[in-house]
Amino acid sequence: MVDVDKSPNFDAIRAAHQRIRPYIHRTPVLTSERLDGTSGALIFFKCENFQKVGAFKARGATNAVFVLDDAKARRGVATHSSGNHGAAVARAAKLRGVPAYIVMPSNSAKVKIRAVESYGAQVVFCEPTEEWREIKCAEVINQTGATLIHSFENEHVMAGQGTAAIELLEDVPDLDLIMCPVGGGGLLSGTAMAAKSMRSQIKVIAVEPENADDAAQSFRAGRRLVTEKKFTIADGLRTNIGEPNFAIVQQYVDAIVTVSEEAIVLAMRTIWEAMKIVIEPSAAVPYAAIQESKIEIRGKRVGIILTGGNVDLDALPWNCSRDR
Amino acid sequence: MVDVDKSPNFDAIRAAHQRIRPYIHRTPVLTSERLDGTSGALIFFKCENFQKVGAFKARGATNAVFVLDDAKARRGVATHSSGNHGAAVARAAKLRGVPAYIVMPSNSAKVKIRAVESYGAQVVFCEPTEEWREIKCAEVINQTGATLIHSFENEHVMAGQGTAAIELLEDVPDLDLIMCPVGGGGLLSGTAMAAKSMRSQIKVIAVEPENADDAAQSFRAGRRLVTEKKFTIADGLRTNIGEPNFAIVQQYVDAIVTVSEEAIVLAMRTIWEAMKIVIEPSAAVPYAAIQESKIEIRGKRVGIILTGGNVDLDALPWNCSRDR
Repeated sequence: MVDVDKSPNFDAIRAAHQRIRPYIHRTPVLTSERLDGTSGALIFFKCENFQKVGAFKARGATNAVFVLDDAKARRGVATHSSGNHGAAVARAAKLRGVPAYIVMPSNSAKVKIRAVESYGAQVVFCEPTEEWREIKCAEVINQTGATLIHSFENEHVMAGQGTAAIELLEDVPDLDLIMCPVGGGGLLSGTAMAAKSMRSQIKVIAVEPENADDAAQSFRAGRRLVTEKKFTIADGLRTNIGEPNFAIVQQYVDAIVTVSEEAIVLAMRTIWEAMKIVIEPSAAVPYAAIQESKIEIRGKRVGIILTGGNVDLDALPWNCSRDR
Repeated sequence: MVDVDKSPNFDAIRAAHQRIRPYIHRTPVLTSERLDGTSGALIFFKCENFQKVGAFKARGATNAVFVLDDAKARRGVATHSSGNHGAAVARAAKLRGVPAYIVMPSNSAKVKIRAVESYGAQVVFCEPTEEWREIKCAEVINQTGATLIHSFENEHVMAGQGTAAIELLEDVPDLDLIMCPVGGGGLLSGTAMAAKSMRSQIKVIAVEPENADDAAQSFRAGRRLVTEKKFTIADGLRTNIGEPNFAIVQQYVDAIVTVSEEAIVLAMRTIWEAMKIVIEPSAAVPYAAIQESKIEIRGKRVGIILTGGNVDLDALPWNCSRDR
């Protein structure tokens, strides 16, 4: 069902960047004297929280929708997602003027359903399990002839996600290392390939919640493991890493480190307070590794991709401990 | 005790901009397609929440400290403040290498006391009333020979605050109107003078919480009134407007409108969600007037100065209704 046998290359990421440029923001790179001071490094934050739909996911989805030929595109696009990817596919389809079918768990937050519907997409509800999402999505594709846009196991999605690293390295060429979180591995695979292609000596470091550390375990084992996950507040990172993504990660990534839930919350809060920007828990994961001293960056120039800024302001982790 | 008889002119604001440039951020101007869509206007947000010390106050304080001649500066600077101005004066004094004495109410938040102390300033505590703050500050000045840097009734502070409008109009020259909140009137007087000098046809609109509407009442009455204040969440705006500030406001400001507490909270939340930036309640006050339809901006190009981003993340207005 997914393009597991195909990987993008750097030319594909460059092409993706040209393709999606009219439809996405070139997001700013921000720095913080305070965070540089406490870390002893120079940190460059690529602010994908300011991206369309509030997350880097706009890049991959837009590329995957716009790369389709007209005949295919006309039959529509489909995906299953409870989060930012669904909104990103819906938005890209609207921009292209083609139908979108977004399979969402029946218990999805209303605000997320409304976001998808606001782009004119058709929401198809399913039981809230991974299995049902895939079954329902296959059903929709069967009925409509729509093209599946998987949220990470898709070469065009991976290529699109890699464009954030292109922009970051265009703005700050002399980075010693680049960091991003890893869930399904769409962002990580694109980032790693783009970064190593543009600057061979750069180190690519992925960071993962301890409570969903399948990528770190797989990386150590040298083969893709599907592991049991505990709850993590970084809800975008609960997914197991994809097959094509892991292949690229093995080739290009230098290390995968893990961080505790407490470190993620502290890092999120630190960035809000120091930088006055709203980021979601998943976006705080790389800085958590720095703050928790899981990685030595003293004296280095470090790029971090802040993945998104969609948070429920009624349920911030530091306000709601009594409710959890 | 204060320079009530002196007002800055546009040359003084230009000179202030040159003077403080090495010590402050040129903050970005951000836009939001979503907020433009709902308002039917084009809104340009000048992000002083990203300014040094997290607020525009860095501008005025830095100008007032650096304008002093060496002999005067060497004896130090003093102010009374429970908020951003104290930290801004402390920081400016540290940059200039002179002593700072910051009078703070004994019940000030620990985080604010630590911020002032982190710049090496001497904190002098007083009873938490306006009268005691002034008495204690006069005492300190008497003992040390320090120069008072009042937070708004000071021509150099006003000139410094006006530099944000210079940058905004340099970046977006063809604004139809410019909006900012009004408390003591330091920002408003500087902004109004700078904006009208750079673009005579621009409208300057100030916005004030209904619960602390002395400036709006004074503006209507044509004379400065000192009014009773109710609680407002926009704590930076509880102050009565200053005398020299009001004189400038009468000359240059086109309207002062007021907004409810609910509108301030909603506007703050809307900006956090749509723009992914952290702003304090006072900074949300101008957008509240737009959202509450207190001012007609359809089809217009509107500049808003977002004054600051220092908020207590443990006490956000939408999380803490049960505690208040």
